[in-house]
Amino acid sequence: MNSLLIVGTGLIGASTGLALKAAGFSGRITGFDLSAAELLIAHESGAIDEVVSTREAATEAARRSDVVLLAVPVFAILDWMTILAPVLKPGQLVTDTGSTKVQIADVARRLFPGVAGPRFLPGHPMAGKESGGAAIAEAGLYQGAVWIFTPVDAESTAEETAWREWMSAIGTKVMDLEPARHDQLLAWVSHLPQMVSTALSALLEDTFGDDPDLRAIGGRALREMTRLGSSPYSMWRDVAMTNTAPLANSLLALEQRLQHLREHLRTPELREEFQRANKFREPR
Amino acid sequence: MNSLLIVGTGLIGASTGLALKAAGFSGRITGFDLSAAELLIAHESGAIDEVVSTREAATEAARRSDVVLLAVPVFAILDWMTILAPVLKPGQLVTDTGSTKVQIADVARRLFPGVAGPRFLPGHPMAGKESGGAAIAEAGLYQGAVWIFTPVDAESTAEETAWREWMSAIGTKVMDLEPARHDQLLAWVSHLPQMVSTALSALLEDTFGDDPDLRAIGGRALREMTRLGSSPYSMWRDVAMTNTAPLANSLLALEQRLQHLREHLRTPELREEFQRANKFREPR
Repeated sequence: MNSLLIVGTGLIGASTGLALKAAGFSGRITGFDLSAAELLIAHESGAIDEVVSTREAATEAARRSDVVLLAVPVFAILDWMTILAPVLKPGQLVTDTGSTKVQIADVARRLFPGVAGPRFLPGHPMAGKESGGAAIAEAGLYQGAVWIFTPVDAESTAEETAWREWMSAIGTKVMDLEPARHDQLLAWVSHLPQMVSTALSALLEDTFGDDPDLRAIGGRALREMTRLGSSPYSMWRDVAMTNTAPLANSLLALEQRLQHLREHLRTPELREEFQRANKFREPR
Repeated sequence: MNSLLIVGTGLIGASTGLALKAAGFSGRITGFDLSAAELLIAHESGAIDEVVSTREAATEAARRSDVVLLAVPVFAILDWMTILAPVLKPGQLVTDTGSTKVQIADVARRLFPGVAGPRFLPGHPMAGKESGGAAIAEAGLYQGAVWIFTPVDAESTAEETAWREWMSAIGTKVMDLEPARHDQLLAWVSHLPQMVSTALSALLEDTFGDDPDLRAIGGRALREMTRLGSSPYSMWRDVAMTNTAPLANSLLALEQRLQHLREHLRTPELREEFQRANKFREPR
């Protein structure tokens, strides 16, 4: 890999650029973002070497790049797949960082069907923050994190192997999953926590508004439970739209569990629930 | 205050002893705990100067102490109030660290009724960890935390004023609340987060058990949301039993909010919920 185009130079895209540089990547990194401000910050931080500022210029830059990384919300990834599939050539690789993988893998199978054309490797780094933006990008964001791939092709090309190796080089643990299993697991470990945090934050806003006592008293438990309440709708809309059924199932299961616990606040069943929870938290 | 008895030398009691010593308290601190191990650790760490190892000896030690701190679960606090009220004298102060305050304040009004006898000042430090024990006690546990009092008497005695000043000296922000308002607010900022974390942890235990993928993928969001799943039933049983209605109300409200969100994963109402949540998280 000698040249990389990063589409979306926010927290995830810019951190990938910074991490690659820190790991010794000496090729050229071009960046594109719909926001001129994000693009400028990513350029000034050194996450990208050069900028392109229109979709057309980004498409041209993609033609000249060994690898294109789509680090934008899921629907924008799907749009870029449609734009890039007809204009790229065999030997080029497109990969992404999208939060859900079933729809992206389906489109990849259709638009990037094997050896005769460019390849698509769906990916998803398990790292992030409750807010976004190139200004809070870090070279170390992925240190120790898992970078999941949900490959649609049985065999890796040289470009795919190179990209996987770079993701290891920046400190991630690379892991392969089936797209449907990815979306199922993520519904539980990421999407459900997000929705609980959003629901609790919105409920507290409606119930307490500016009440200073609530904020004075609230400690670590409240901070942790509502931290993701800061997350932007723009990203999570795409997650909710592309992983609706698994997310709805996990939400319903938690609602039922909370109801069960509420109905047993004064019975020995509460102890059973605490014991199951304690067991989940034990080291395995 | 020249002498203090700490009943319950776990995380909260031992940390209070350590914090007082670090803040310059030079009086004698006696400790009692049903667990000989906890008592030994607290003694060896210097949180307490001497130990008493039976309830009878603790009651005798209480007679000789200016202040008695009850740092045990709520029902044990209520038991100790019943034991101590008849044997203490005017000028002596009993205070506590219990997680709920309505029942304790009610019992205090009945058993410690004013100037003719010993006084009771209900208290609750907003600090702790998901697990307990003297081994993880820290002199700095209360730095920057709020220490709530729900006084049952209109005027402070000299001992109450001294105790409040020591709680400031160890780094806490002292705050007074009505007992009912305390329990209402705590239902939201502490008891609800605990029950959500317990319910989610127990649900994940049942759904995934030992599945290594779940644990490999789970990041900060999962860790934060399930951290309190480690909390012991022994303490939370008393909270659930003594704050049942406020906690049940907050649980029901969250269940309804999660249901609402689940039914609107694909509608613009999801944006409204994210905006309300974002607003809650904005600095005020």
